[in-house]
Amino acid sequence: MTLSIEIDSARLLRRLEQLAAISDCPEPPPAVTRVVFSETDLRARAYLASLYAECGLQVRVDAIGNTFARWQGTQPELPAVGTGSHTDAIPHSGMYDGTVGVLGALESIAALQAAGFRPRRSIELVMFTSEEPTRFGVGCTGSRLMSGAMTMQRLCELRDVVGDNYDVVRTRAGMCGALEDVRLKQDHFSAWVELHIEQGPELERSSTDIGVVTAIAAPATYEFEVHGSGGHAGAVLMGGRRDALCATAKIVLAIEYLARHSPSADLVATVGQLQVHPGAINSIPSMVRFSLDIRDIDVANRDEVFGKLAQWAQRIANQRDVSVDSKCLNADPPATCDATIVGVIQNACRELGLTHQNMISRAYHDSLFMARVAPTGMIFIPCRGGVSHRPDEFSTLEQMEKGVAALALTLAELSK
Amino acid sequence: MTLSIEIDSARLLRRLEQLAAISDCPEPPPAVTRVVFSETDLRARAYLASLYAECGLQVRVDAIGNTFARWQGTQPELPAVGTGSHTDAIPHSGMYDGTVGVLGALESIAALQAAGFRPRRSIELVMFTSEEPTRFGVGCTGSRLMSGAMTMQRLCELRDVVGDNYDVVRTRAGMCGALEDVRLKQDHFSAWVELHIEQGPELERSSTDIGVVTAIAAPATYEFEVHGSGGHAGAVLMGGRRDALCATAKIVLAIEYLARHSPSADLVATVGQLQVHPGAINSIPSMVRFSLDIRDIDVANRDEVFGKLAQWAQRIANQRDVSVDSKCLNADPPATCDATIVGVIQNACRELGLTHQNMISRAYHDSLFMARVAPTGMIFIPCRGGVSHRPDEFSTLEQMEKGVAALALTLAELSK
Repeated sequence: MTLSIEIDSARLLRRLEQLAAISDCPEPPPAVTRVVFSETDLRARAYLASLYAECGLQVRVDAIGNTFARWQGTQPELPAVGTGSHTDAIPHSGMYDGTVGVLGALESIAALQAAGFRPRRSIELVMFTSEEPTRFGVGCTGSRLMSGAMTMQRLCELRDVVGDNYDVVRTRAGMCGALEDVRLKQDHFSAWVELHIEQGPELERSSTDIGVVTAIAAPATYEFEVHGSGGHAGAVLMGGRRDALCATAKIVLAIEYLARHSPSADLVATVGQLQVHPGAINSIPSMVRFSLDIRDIDVANRDEVFGKLAQWAQRIANQRDVSVDSKCLNADPPATCDATIVGVIQNACRELGLTHQNMISRAYHDSLFMARVAPTGMIFIPCRGGVSHRPDEFSTLEQMEKGVAALALTLAELSK
Repeated sequence: MTLSIEIDSARLLRRLEQLAAISDCPEPPPAVTRVVFSETDLRARAYLASLYAECGLQVRVDAIGNTFARWQGTQPELPAVGTGSHTDAIPHSGMYDGTVGVLGALESIAALQAAGFRPRRSIELVMFTSEEPTRFGVGCTGSRLMSGAMTMQRLCELRDVVGDNYDVVRTRAGMCGALEDVRLKQDHFSAWVELHIEQGPELERSSTDIGVVTAIAAPATYEFEVHGSGGHAGAVLMGGRRDALCATAKIVLAIEYLARHSPSADLVATVGQLQVHPGAINSIPSMVRFSLDIRDIDVANRDEVFGKLAQWAQRIANQRDVSVDSKCLNADPPATCDATIVGVIQNACRELGLTHQNMISRAYHDSLFMARVAPTGMIFIPCRGGVSHRPDEFSTLEQMEKGVAALALTLAELSK
């Protein structure tokens, strides 16, 4: 029997819009801000719960808020097939990142149900807590803890900007239960597949419907502190200054230079956060704290460029009589996708008549960590201009429909 | 009759410490944060009111919180002699800036009272609202409005970081009355004298007790916005970026270079505030907003250097395909101190056996604006290492005592 899959893409878009309206961004949707464990995050979770109930899925929420919505298979004792993504959103971002992988997977399940398909293995739709690093400086805390890539101790050491630690914040948000129980058993999932927008320009450029991900790049993040000497902006002459911001400006440009001239063209380095202390208009900056996000498919090159960069920063600091320190927030190895799952996705595309190409994911995803506990694949769909993490992030109804259909056939095959 | 002046400097220090304890800084005193119209500012005002009452001064508070504590003269109908300074403090600053000019002036008055002096003209001690630009981006709003250097319309357009305008914030803080009435009548003061720490290293370097200020440098402040293109830190390759922070780093270094190589050695330029948007660790900065504070004794040179700097910023923006805009928050002309008052302060120093030197104030003060409505002078005392706007800002008990004594004799002479 061939499955006749009908995707209700209008409903998918309506739900994406409803979810986007649950936002802390001062601007209206499509601008979205939804930070983990905020009131808004909790409202988004309640909205998803209502949709899961409509689909007859059984819901389990773990101790840090990872949510498992399960469509029971005919042999529920077998390891399940997992799919899903995240719904948290960095400040002033868009409405497709992560959400397409959650609400789209829900449409895949609904389409399989409508087509009369009965899975042998259960299918579990996972909404991961805190994929974005906005609040605690480290991303994918949900999948890290699930996969054992992060210890409970390390998780509990993470603090948000007001100094509250992860454990306090999750408890205050109503997430209860033992942290021990978050870690998945090794045979929990027989397979894992995540649907996501590409967040890059390749599929659009080559007019390809589907990107079949074969590997996920290795990200590392660091926090830098530059300490100089403050003072009154009027009274301290230029010659006597040890301005922490001027030294930082030199370091930011050195980072850009080294990334642009890296041996690997895939290396990217970004300073996305920067705070100036004391931050007064008439005060010389005494301290600057900034973040560095550096990624490459080639982990050795990534670490080599970082090493050079740390040396350059030190030299700049010496020249300007300031100090510079960096600490590593996380440095993850890359992940390789499972050849069988890659094949299943390719077959699903062929069956649906969709153009597809293999590709690397330069952005990281919860799948980077899920690959540690299950054979993993990812399905990418194009997004306009490769833009993501911005309000103008956009995929068409048709692009999403194709991705959801490919996911549905993939889930069907893997759960047989 | 020669006056026998006894300064209670221990009480002055005690009061400075009590005032420093009224702070929003997470660190204990001497670190101080006291932003205008905050709860903490209101508590500091209440503390001052209790001291004024002890000294029998009549208190009047105007519509924006400028506070006049008046020691009635024997001919109260004559224009008064004014003195005073401010008690607001930028984030994480020290306990002497401004406060020595308020609490020190109170000790001058107490010493004159104890010496049996009776002023003919009333002596008014003024605590100015919002000398620091922390909250509204423009400093000296109290003295600007009093002197007519700023219109009510302009004042009401100022907004703090959460978007509340000056009028809303002052009203919420309990400051009432008509803004029209803040402006002083031209003959309100016959003379104005402000006591202040130098905030620079000259007096300490030359071991001089008192600086007699002859002119106040001309400050200008600007707000810059750099708009580039955001995006995901993993997915957008280096070659395709228009990173607003990297462009800003170039501009910050250009500002530093032009200030260091200015024709006038007195020119200083400082970027003290900088915000990155959206400010996520994994997002390319799409927009950066930063402040520029630029000062010189030579206003023509200041404006020329700014002009060049704006050109350089534009060139950097063009090279990097980003946009840059700047708007002037304020650009004030320099002020010249009154020759008669300079002479009176010099005489007071001679009478007290204090070493003194004429000097320029590179920092600006409310006296910059008071000079528009009254003959003006300033008395500087040394501060350790020239440090100010930092917790380690420091003047000795003896240095303060000498300044307060010089102020007392100056007030006595001017109020005769």
